[in-house]
Amino acid sequence: MKKKQAKASTGLTTEKKTTAKRTKKPVILVTNDDGISAPGLLNLVEAVKDLGKIVVVAPDKPQSGMGHAITIGQPLRLQRVHIISDIETWSCTGTPVDCVKLAVDKVLHRKPDLCLSGINHGANHSINVIYSGTMSAALEAAIESIPSAGFSLLDYSIEADFSGARKFVRKIVQYMLQTKLDKHTALNVNIPAVPENLLKGIKICRQAYAKYEEDFIERADPHGRNYYWLTGEFVNFDKGKDTDVWALTHNYVSVVPVQFDLTNYTLKKQLEKIWK
Amino acid sequence: MKKKQAKASTGLTTEKKTTAKRTKKPVILVTNDDGISAPGLLNLVEAVKDLGKIVVVAPDKPQSGMGHAITIGQPLRLQRVHIISDIETWSCTGTPVDCVKLAVDKVLHRKPDLCLSGINHGANHSINVIYSGTMSAALEAAIESIPSAGFSLLDYSIEADFSGARKFVRKIVQYMLQTKLDKHTALNVNIPAVPENLLKGIKICRQAYAKYEEDFIERADPHGRNYYWLTGEFVNFDKGKDTDVWALTHNYVSVVPVQFDLTNYTLKKQLEKIWK
Repeated sequence: MKKKQAKASTGLTTEKKTTAKRTKKPVILVTNDDGISAPGLLNLVEAVKDLGKIVVVAPDKPQSGMGHAITIGQPLRLQRVHIISDIETWSCTGTPVDCVKLAVDKVLHRKPDLCLSGINHGANHSINVIYSGTMSAALEAAIESIPSAGFSLLDYSIEADFSGARKFVRKIVQYMLQTKLDKHTALNVNIPAVPENLLKGIKICRQAYAKYEEDFIERADPHGRNYYWLTGEFVNFDKGKDTDVWALTHNYVSVVPVQFDLTNYTLKKQLEKIWK
Repeated sequence: MKKKQAKASTGLTTEKKTTAKRTKKPVILVTNDDGISAPGLLNLVEAVKDLGKIVVVAPDKPQSGMGHAITIGQPLRLQRVHIISDIETWSCTGTPVDCVKLAVDKVLHRKPDLCLSGINHGANHSINVIYSGTMSAALEAAIESIPSAGFSLLDYSIEADFSGARKFVRKIVQYMLQTKLDKHTALNVNIPAVPENLLKGIKICRQAYAKYEEDFIERADPHGRNYYWLTGEFVNFDKGKDTDVWALTHNYVSVVPVQFDLTNYTLKKQLEKIWK
């Protein structure tokens, strides 16, 4: 009896409640690694802003190649900024992973329903996933049981054309909101840098085995001391037609679901036999 | 006939050749993330220095929590230092991953036979693998087809007792040198912080599902502006008895073979069905 009264006191019938639940917008956290003022971030927000309540927490400066770095030795700053109209936006002094952690604990005070990272200026396919701040932010969300996706356009330029990318970002986010996905889902989405009409569709892929052939450029400073610039050539060793590299070469948008369990189970079995 | 002559002209019989091969010392690259002056690095070198030709290339300052970060926006410096007697040692301004890349390209001018990272002051079990500079250096080597291992002692203190750790490090490196391992092998080795006589042996494990429950400490600077310190509590959600967390709790040295293919194949299959 008491329970019934309590239920009645909410002032909502079951039907009304369901409707309220249905119309309640999902909270979507947006971040990136190119920094708060990168056009890619704005394009991501524009692509999805009517699909949920968007909150942006992004690094105050470029953080490309930061991988899964976190800031331990110094404190972090968080500042409310007004650079994207009608969107709650925060600038953070930390890495992309720091942004996700701080957003949950100090901005949202809850887990968002989705975390989106990007749109990165440049590829994060294949081995890039491991160096990428964009994808590390997405993976951090997945660790925290927040389904996530990182988006990258294969065009480094600041004036890149994001129109095709935006359509596919929107489509994938709609998919994610409609599908009951595992809470640890993290998608690595790469989009070819071709005109929109040439994009063939989405392909679910595995990560290609490719890597960089390093070639450090050696220079001498005015005092005669050497220094080195990291450069390298991306080389694909993987001939598979189910990889992200293959898909992108053939004008497909590649989607690789990624995970944070790094255990090599094949090698684990081998070692259990040998080292016992 | 020609072949035979060529063989004879090397001046080595088959037996002599084999001996020469056997006595040729493997080149072992050593790095870490606690920096060149960390006691853990010296302990790693001491544990293995008679097993190969050791070359150390390590960061000039602590790089804990740097994950798989690389240095893109600024150049790197490399300096020969004389802090470990009889060992070729270089100090590098970059991250642990930078150290591995630079070592191969500009110090060794070849791939070493093995890459060892550590001994880290503090745990790198479970999800720590993803934030760890120690393990990212090892993983970078594995990407480069250099078998590798990262070692961590579950004791953060600068005065940690590495005596038990050294014995197991040596044992594992001997195993690695004797076994024909996959070239992409990377081992995540953690050692409990207990007296040597309590260490029960080695256990091959999978990575436990555990994570940090973040709790940022909020403070105000003298000008009244807030800043945040990242802190968190490690929480294990994994009840399995085949995990690194379980092994370490039971005084075993945990060995998790790790990989850089992050593809979530289970989710890939699901998405292929849903999103087609």
